[in-house]
Amino acid sequence: MTTPRILEVRTKILKQNDETARAMRQQFDRLGLLVVNLVSSPGTGKTSFLLETLRRLRKQGEPVAAIVGDLETDNDARRLAESGAPVRQIMTHGLCHLEADMVAQELADWNLADFHYLFIENVGNLVCPTSWDLGEHVRLALLSVTEGEDKPLKYPGLFNTADVAAITKCDLAEACEFNRDLAMANIASVRPGMTVFETSAKQGTGIDQWLAYLASRRHAECHAG
Amino acid sequence: MTTPRILEVRTKILKQNDETARAMRQQFDRLGLLVVNLVSSPGTGKTSFLLETLRRLRKQGEPVAAIVGDLETDNDARRLAESGAPVRQIMTHGLCHLEADMVAQELADWNLADFHYLFIENVGNLVCPTSWDLGEHVRLALLSVTEGEDKPLKYPGLFNTADVAAITKCDLAEACEFNRDLAMANIASVRPGMTVFETSAKQGTGIDQWLAYLASRRHAECHAG
Repeated sequence: MTTPRILEVRTKILKQNDETARAMRQQFDRLGLLVVNLVSSPGTGKTSFLLETLRRLRKQGEPVAAIVGDLETDNDARRLAESGAPVRQIMTHGLCHLEADMVAQELADWNLADFHYLFIENVGNLVCPTSWDLGEHVRLALLSVTEGEDKPLKYPGLFNTADVAAITKCDLAEACEFNRDLAMANIASVRPGMTVFETSAKQGTGIDQWLAYLASRRHAECHAG
Repeated sequence: MTTPRILEVRTKILKQNDETARAMRQQFDRLGLLVVNLVSSPGTGKTSFLLETLRRLRKQGEPVAAIVGDLETDNDARRLAESGAPVRQIMTHGLCHLEADMVAQELADWNLADFHYLFIENVGNLVCPTSWDLGEHVRLALLSVTEGEDKPLKYPGLFNTADVAAITKCDLAEACEFNRDLAMANIASVRPGMTVFETSAKQGTGIDQWLAYLASRRHAECHAG
């Protein structure tokens, strides 16, 4: 079996990734740029959630930008650009997650001092993005009411490595017979004490709480701006 | 960069997987056992769809069995066992897809001649299961109305490598403002002519058409039973 060799190669690549991510995070800190990595299953509504986030931050006068990882299309990037924020697309051509190198390359010719917040929408996948640090300050795991309350139990790695969680599409909770208490208990069992935002991008609920959290994190983490 | 070495190891492992899968498929053919591999995003409703499938096949007197891949829990296996069919769980402990070896190992002490249909519920993931042949005759890609109509464009590999598709949770189509024609057009653009079942496990719609398709495939593919 070739498993040990795969593991060795994989460990080396992850180590390189961590070093790149760490260097990026130090740069972000110096510039006063809070970086957020959004991870979830495909179809959870990352793009709608992020579009609403970008719109509100711009309304507040905050300079924001976004990067979107996608396998093949630039659909999400085009949607996010409706916010008026600069948005870039990383096409992974089949790769199931973003890596620090890809982000670093995409950011190389951007003047990051121009921004207060940078959002990275990862490839829709509950498993693979877990291991890849992108230099972010905040990793947000999203879970929609349409997905089933047991996702945190089935994908504990995603919720364990995230800093905060958001429940999305809460406007559909009743139609989906979503059991809110069970979902909350499942998140808490995987990651006790985790802050969870209950949101609907369509109805605009819960987004203000999320923005207040981001502002406090930026204040705490970043040493400029 | 270590990428070429990764690719080389990966190619070798995929080749081994294909050989194992091919040998299994020949065995399934001889036994008159139709094998179905269900792939989709987490939360698409694979388990509910499969539970309804197992229940109806058992009502028809068909001997059926199922294997479920999951990262950490046996929730899905326990739900499927409610159908009365034998169900086994493969826990992947973080691995994002099933491989032919895992299935072969799980089947080793099963008398496969006892069954007409075997269903394999893959790990919820739109990317990684694509490359791994499990020896199935039918690969079914599922897409729920809650996920967004552009999933086939964003994950073309999943739909390209599938034989048929099912749209799930059609009972929620209106609440989600699901654009059926757009979804159908997107599937057709990635895989022209693909058969698509429009289903609701909750309301029981579309499952009979799916079962009729399975019966015709079993008749065509399997040389015994």
